[in-house]
Amino acid sequence: MSKLVNSIREAVALSGLKDGMTVSFHHHLRNGDFVLNMVMEEIANAGIKDLTVNASSLFDVHRPLLTHIQNKVVTGLSADYISAGIGRAISQGVMEKPVEFRTHGGRPRDIALGRTPIDVAFIAAPAADKMGNCTGKYGKSACGSLGYAFADAMYAKKVVVITDQLMDYPLQNWSISESYVDYVVAVDAIGDPKGIVSGTTQITRDPVGLVMASHAAKVIENSGLLKDGFSFQTGAGGASLAAAKYLKDIMLEKKIQGSFGLGGITGYLVDMLQAGCFRNLLDVQCFDLKAVESIRSDPRHQEITAMHYAAPGSRSAVVDNLDVVILGATEIDTDFNVNVHTDSNGYIMGGSGGHSDTAAGAKLSMIIAPMFRARLPIVTDRVTCISTPGESIDVLVTQGGIAVNPRQAELKQRLVDAGLPVVDIHELKEKAERITGKPAKLPKGDRVVANVIGREGDLQDVIYNVPVKD
Amino acid sequence: MSKLVNSIREAVALSGLKDGMTVSFHHHLRNGDFVLNMVMEEIANAGIKDLTVNASSLFDVHRPLLTHIQNKVVTGLSADYISAGIGRAISQGVMEKPVEFRTHGGRPRDIALGRTPIDVAFIAAPAADKMGNCTGKYGKSACGSLGYAFADAMYAKKVVVITDQLMDYPLQNWSISESYVDYVVAVDAIGDPKGIVSGTTQITRDPVGLVMASHAAKVIENSGLLKDGFSFQTGAGGASLAAAKYLKDIMLEKKIQGSFGLGGITGYLVDMLQAGCFRNLLDVQCFDLKAVESIRSDPRHQEITAMHYAAPGSRSAVVDNLDVVILGATEIDTDFNVNVHTDSNGYIMGGSGGHSDTAAGAKLSMIIAPMFRARLPIVTDRVTCISTPGESIDVLVTQGGIAVNPRQAELKQRLVDAGLPVVDIHELKEKAERITGKPAKLPKGDRVVANVIGREGDLQDVIYNVPVKD
Repeated sequence: MSKLVNSIREAVALSGLKDGMTVSFHHHLRNGDFVLNMVMEEIANAGIKDLTVNASSLFDVHRPLLTHIQNKVVTGLSADYISAGIGRAISQGVMEKPVEFRTHGGRPRDIALGRTPIDVAFIAAPAADKMGNCTGKYGKSACGSLGYAFADAMYAKKVVVITDQLMDYPLQNWSISESYVDYVVAVDAIGDPKGIVSGTTQITRDPVGLVMASHAAKVIENSGLLKDGFSFQTGAGGASLAAAKYLKDIMLEKKIQGSFGLGGITGYLVDMLQAGCFRNLLDVQCFDLKAVESIRSDPRHQEITAMHYAAPGSRSAVVDNLDVVILGATEIDTDFNVNVHTDSNGYIMGGSGGHSDTAAGAKLSMIIAPMFRARLPIVTDRVTCISTPGESIDVLVTQGGIAVNPRQAELKQRLVDAGLPVVDIHELKEKAERITGKPAKLPKGDRVVANVIGREGDLQDVIYNVPVKD
Repeated sequence: MSKLVNSIREAVALSGLKDGMTVSFHHHLRNGDFVLNMVMEEIANAGIKDLTVNASSLFDVHRPLLTHIQNKVVTGLSADYISAGIGRAISQGVMEKPVEFRTHGGRPRDIALGRTPIDVAFIAAPAADKMGNCTGKYGKSACGSLGYAFADAMYAKKVVVITDQLMDYPLQNWSISESYVDYVVAVDAIGDPKGIVSGTTQITRDPVGLVMASHAAKVIENSGLLKDGFSFQTGAGGASLAAAKYLKDIMLEKKIQGSFGLGGITGYLVDMLQAGCFRNLLDVQCFDLKAVESIRSDPRHQEITAMHYAAPGSRSAVVDNLDVVILGATEIDTDFNVNVHTDSNGYIMGGSGGHSDTAAGAKLSMIIAPMFRARLPIVTDRVTCISTPGESIDVLVTQGGIAVNPRQAELKQRLVDAGLPVVDIHELKEKAERITGKPAKLPKGDRVVANVIGREGDLQDVIYNVPVKD
């Protein structure tokens, strides 16, 4: 018995995909992914129209999707993150229906509850056997964890696994089981390894970044949370990684053994695991080669599903037991609401991903951001888009000082007592504006191009089109 | 955050369990299990009545269930296997409603499809953390795989994990994730290690058993299936294990590397893995300590869910790619129908377990059984109960010859060509009857005490009560 079919075209035909249905994709191959484009091209060739694409994230490599949108092959879009190359076109109004943004936890919850049913899920699998057992840990396109793809596989009506590395049955150490898979397609390449994972991401050498990172590490050190059993998540940005590096030094010096590092995993968290800073890494997505090697070979480094990672709809998720998360922002307002969806001109260039989920779960949610970027202050009166509500954010760390959410009076006192440069968030705003000047108000379009659905399933905010300049 | 509650009593109360609902249990602690009895006692104490118990299997240790049945705490019973200590009472009519027997694959399929909804699942977990991540691989009551418990955890409305080994959060190498768990209870002991797994099961020394085992190995050797990639499942009976031992010698001598060993796993299959006879073991249940040690430490030895193992309702199951399975029988009729539900007096003392699932899936399904037991022939005109339909059975191996299902003409020719003692199944029946005499017809009751639901969900047969003698 075998589920192998000859081509993506054949799998699309067998799946029963029809006008008006929903297809899904996951983003572990990141900006190296070939699968979404290959599949959508076959779908377009088949003359199927009016589809909704539910992708955990979209990257610039997926720009051909814009043609399918223009041709009405795709009329609905749902994602947790959309990079600038596609986001800009969305903001300019390429779609009639607003895009639906969700969080990395909200997406699998809504799939599991049947709120966003998937007709056909396409799983890009770096290694798979003829029955569909598959994993991201092996193969020439290895990406490590397949955490975001589980909900798609478990709940879609039809599931197609697309691989460039067919393995003997049964694939050892599978992630997604054949129980969920209908068809398997072997192709020459599912992605470009150079785009799938970076080499080791560099920590910042920018002096501003290093100041922020040092502040961030000291906030954690003095938060009262840094003790045995400590758990931690950070992003892959240069300053966040530098903060992790400083934190590692503190943990080693103080002989603190944390419980787990979480999230999208970088080589820096692998270093911390190997140095004994954590007992475990829980990995929903690997950001670099070192993380891929580690998840393949170190049993302490484990794959988790997006649901296990972050879903509010399950009985619990790991974010509920997270101590500290370091996050980024394109804007943060004086109520601590954070925008990671749009750039300072209002164009879509991101999304919550796990931002809201980890911020809601973590005991200490810290934003690291410079006081201004491209001569625009980070702190504003009101963010263009509420990606993560201010009630989930505890601290903003900038090079010009550390602002603590007034809800966290005890934390603020701890940081003051530790001699850290604690300032009011309004001061940070004014300080930046003294340097950059008060920015002009963004011209706001009159049409909603995206609905931002909060992690609890509510409509949290909307994003308007950016008017084309005369 | 923690899901720990103080007692099973508290967990039962919090679960919202009410009269008429369904509770479920899994059987990896086998005849050493304390959990089902502890839970049912608390349920009885709480005055809850009219429950259905859906257990993957019931063993003699669960005899206190009979009191709950007599007291109408339990009025419905569903299981894949019921051992003699409880089966006898069922056959004598202790329950008003017929028991529902399913297969190990049919049970999770029916749970997943909502045909047998579970209100509260109780998961006996040898190791768990405060959030409910749990596994059978560690702890003083380690049982290895928790394969049968996954469907219960994934689909029950409420899930209670009961453990006697609380681990730091997050438990490394979890089997069932916290995503599914509502409450965690720590107790002194979830089972008696002596009853959970045996020491290494002994292969038979009985000369009849050895003859059968040798025949069985030769049938496999000459079946055309024994080549690189070969896959195999066998039970834990003495003759089956001896057959595995002979098979191992043949595979090593011929330098054949199989793909996987499947099923309930014994130390003999672990030996075959370690000797290089298989690349993998796929384990839904560990039968002995050696298997538990292996699944804990050898990455080639992997846990599978009952759905992945055998469910006909999923897109595929491993049994669909199984080459050879060796199975037992209490009776087999001249149409090759097999009974493993009742003993020769008609009393319930077993069940299909994975019998029908593997027989349906395997290319070669072989029954090993002596020509007679306790002076009763194994081959009959019609089995008392069709546990596995004859169309799934290919070969019967006895000490008196090998009968091949007429559907398998090519196989029969292969065995004849190899000089094996192939006989007609009617001959085996007559040969046995010449020694034992023709057995008297069983007195058959007039009341159905059990419905045997085939793996495809059909009512395959019924079991009648055994009339009490005057």
